[in-house]
Amino acid sequence: MDITKIQNQLQKFAFDRDWEQFHTPKNLAMALSVEASELVEIFQWLNAEESNSPNQKQTEEINSEVADIAMYLLRFCSVLGIDLEKAIESKLERNAEKYPVNLSKGNAQKYNQRGD
Amino acid sequence: MDITKIQNQLQKFAFDRDWEQFHTPKNLAMALSVEASELVEIFQWLNAEESNSPNQKQTEEINSEVADIAMYLLRFCSVLGIDLEKAIESKLERNAEKYPVNLSKGNAQKYNQRGD
Amino acid sequence: MDITKIQNQLQKFAFDRDWEQFHTPKNLAMALSVEASELVEIFQWLNAEESNSPNQKQTEEINSEVADIAMYLLRFCSVLGIDLEKAIESKLERNAEKYPVNLSKGNAQKYNQRGD
Amino acid sequence: MDITKIQNQLQKFAFDRDWEQFHTPKNLAMALSVEASELVEIFQWLNAEESNSPNQKQTEEINSEVADIAMYLLRFCSVLGIDLEKAIESKLERNAEKYPVNLSKGNAQKYNQRGD
Repeated sequence: MDITKIQNQLQKFAFDRDWEQFHTPKNLAMALSVEASELVEIFQWLNAEESNSPNQKQTEEINSEVADIAMYLLRFCSVLGIDLEKAIESKLERNAEKYPVNLSKGNAQKYNQRGD
Repeated sequence: MDITKIQNQLQKFAFDRDWEQFHTPKNLAMALSVEASELVEIFQWLNAEESNSPNQKQTEEINSEVADIAMYLLRFCSVLGIDLEKAIESKLERNAEKYPVNLSKGNAQKYNQRGD
Repeated sequence: MDITKIQNQLQKFAFDRDWEQFHTPKNLAMALSVEASELVEIFQWLNAEESNSPNQKQTEEINSEVADIAMYLLRFCSVLGIDLEKAIESKLERNAEKYPVNLSKGNAQKYNQRGD
Repeated sequence: MDITKIQNQLQKFAFDRDWEQFHTPKNLAMALSVEASELVEIFQWLNAEESNSPNQKQTEEINSEVADIAMYLLRFCSVLGIDLEKAIESKLERNAEKYPVNLSKGNAQKYNQRGD
């Protein structure tokens, strides 16, 4: 995925509409969390099995929401000058240390809640 | 950004820890929204200006949260077989139609709230 | 529950700490949603059954989070001069109209998603 | 506010529609956070001043959302047998200890982020 290209498109989109004034990190973080909740809304009354096989209408909504989330996330990173790819790499490394296989197997609790 | 590579890493990470049982679309959507709120938390008491220049500690937290959001988003798409790049392209096209420059300039209200 | 008394306590608490400057409706809405997500976090990896019988530690966290949510909600209403009790009564009436028993039975989909 | 009366109304509402099956603590926590985000959505592009004086349409939406939040919160507490009033009292006491006036004045950072 060409992140920089998408970020440039999003910046032009905002610039053309004079929306850069609204795109503070604070507002973009809010918008991102609102879109994440719209994704949650699709699943809130479904059980685990149903959530694995969304119907056609739900699938369209899901595609729409994941795009919104990705776009606000990329826009947010762009505005604050964050290198998302590097942030992910760094987090993957830390997670590997934080959740060693032998202590984490079959246990989704966070490392700091393991209580040992 | 090599999305497929990251998605493969995330899947292996979950598989090695027997965490795939927890990674239903419903649970991943919840986890994604929780991470988005942790990003919001950093900004909740900051004004617009302050949110533009986070300090060192905030910057580290922000990098950590955007990585978590991206990783849950990629994992969610992986589990449901969603092509994120295609979803973004499709949404960019629809947004261009939905928010024409002449009607949207300087106005962040959603198209359907313009009231015309 | 004496809402007005709690709201007065919360206002005094904010006033004494010079926190009223931070308590804009925008910021309080953010803080409320962050607390709601902290409640979600407790349940994100639990299945439906497990969520019905939280352990001692989870119960303490849940009590702490529902209190935070209630307090930010009451503070938000206080700052904007909203009569929460009246808002609830009004919504209960609308919901009774929106979700008639015969059309809603066993179906948690929203009225406007019923497709008829 | 007669919380028990509202909780009884909500329980009857759910029972009459056979919705109790959907009202697990997990699902109700999700629904609560979704409503909280709908409140956030109203404010996401407003600046601090604008958020203090919502227009008529925004005020109606705000009233609707705070009612939804309160109702899901009360329903959640009802399902898990939580005494919300007691939880609030307990939290108010802890907050008074956690945020002493002399250390918190004009500083909205959480106690554990004060760094001293």
